[in-house]
Amino acid sequence: MPQRAVEDVLWAYYFRLMDLKKDFRFKYVLIFKNEGEVAGSSLEHSHSQLIALPIIPKTVKEEMDTAKQYYDSKERCIFCDIINQEIETGKRVIYENDKYVAVAPFAPREPFETWILPKLHESNFGPSDKSFSGLADIMQRVLKQLDKVLDTPPYNFILHTSAFKDEINDYYHWHIEIMPKLTRTAGFEWGSGFYVNPTPPEEAAKFMREAKI
Amino acid sequence: MPQRAVEDVLWAYYFRLMDLKKDFRFKYVLIFKNEGEVAGSSLEHSHSQLIALPIIPKTVKEEMDTAKQYYDSKERCIFCDIINQEIETGKRVIYENDKYVAVAPFAPREPFETWILPKLHESNFGPSDKSFSGLADIMQRVLKQLDKVLDTPPYNFILHTSAFKDEINDYYHWHIEIMPKLTRTAGFEWGSGFYVNPTPPEEAAKFMREAKI
Repeated sequence: MPQRAVEDVLWAYYFRLMDLKKDFRFKYVLIFKNEGEVAGSSLEHSHSQLIALPIIPKTVKEEMDTAKQYYDSKERCIFCDIINQEIETGKRVIYENDKYVAVAPFAPREPFETWILPKLHESNFGPSDKSFSGLADIMQRVLKQLDKVLDTPPYNFILHTSAFKDEINDYYHWHIEIMPKLTRTAGFEWGSGFYVNPTPPEEAAKFMREAKI
Repeated sequence: MPQRAVEDVLWAYYFRLMDLKKDFRFKYVLIFKNEGEVAGSSLEHSHSQLIALPIIPKTVKEEMDTAKQYYDSKERCIFCDIINQEIETGKRVIYENDKYVAVAPFAPREPFETWILPKLHESNFGPSDKSFSGLADIMQRVLKQLDKVLDTPPYNFILHTSAFKDEINDYYHWHIEIMPKLTRTAGFEWGSGFYVNPTPPEEAAKFMREAKI
């Protein structure tokens, strides 16, 4: 896809979010993409999905509550702290441009789990300086790196953004989580909520950085 | 497997639990089985798995806390209430013998999700009247029904039992959860913690009851 087409996809996400916000039935809109059959994709044509929900989903609520707890005790956004620390050490940074950074998170649930975050605090998904060019650049770059390193793996990505009722806040920081599907979720993960991941994030980030694309 | 061999497997679970309890490093022991490659099985030979953990896992803690909340407000075990209600209505009952009942839970996460529970309150996994014959009977029966109805599907089952530090209590009720892997966990499930299930539990239970084995 040319980068402009990726920007159009991101604008479509944004306009759908802005429009659905007007409908008082909805508390949260989940946007995600399943790529490849193993990742649950049901159509061959490349597509994203959007589900508007009358409640804030469990996983989203847990993340928000934890971010809020951290903010209440430190008066700093946990994601801003993570970004500063990751950029300082550099070991888990995959790619960065002016506005965004892609990292292998410190405790990834699956091999090559990758997060893309705006460098400056933004609680709510939207264009930066009225443009999605920086986000399209990093999304495209990271997905190409994944394709190169893992031979076009199936993956899911999920947009994590604030709930409608509390869109602008100091404690939450929108981001995109990309999960290549290389391992299987089995009894241990189901039964515990914990994940077994054989790939250290420092190694995954190094492979990704060194991918020739 | 002859029923006696299934009883031996259950005794092995029990003896391993009893032995690991003596090791003060462990707070919880998770016992589960992954059957079939899609369900995460890595060995061809039929086997169960046991993982002893130094903390109570997230999923287990959530279930315990919720059961405790219910008990604190009603002074009744939530699982005892579910069992009584399910046996009374009958629609979601799959099979029962003297001591155990197998049901399709009211809000199953996946098609044909099946729970096996002791009919009388027992917080902690163990033999009933010093025998595992009733449990072996219902386990074998239900797994045969699943194999018949779904053509030997991949599945996970997980033993849900109390944590070592609070083994005997009034609020939790041990049980086994069986999850055939018919659908794929994709972006929506990852992002929300909610599950899309196209099969009503009443239909799944009916298919299971009518399976000729």
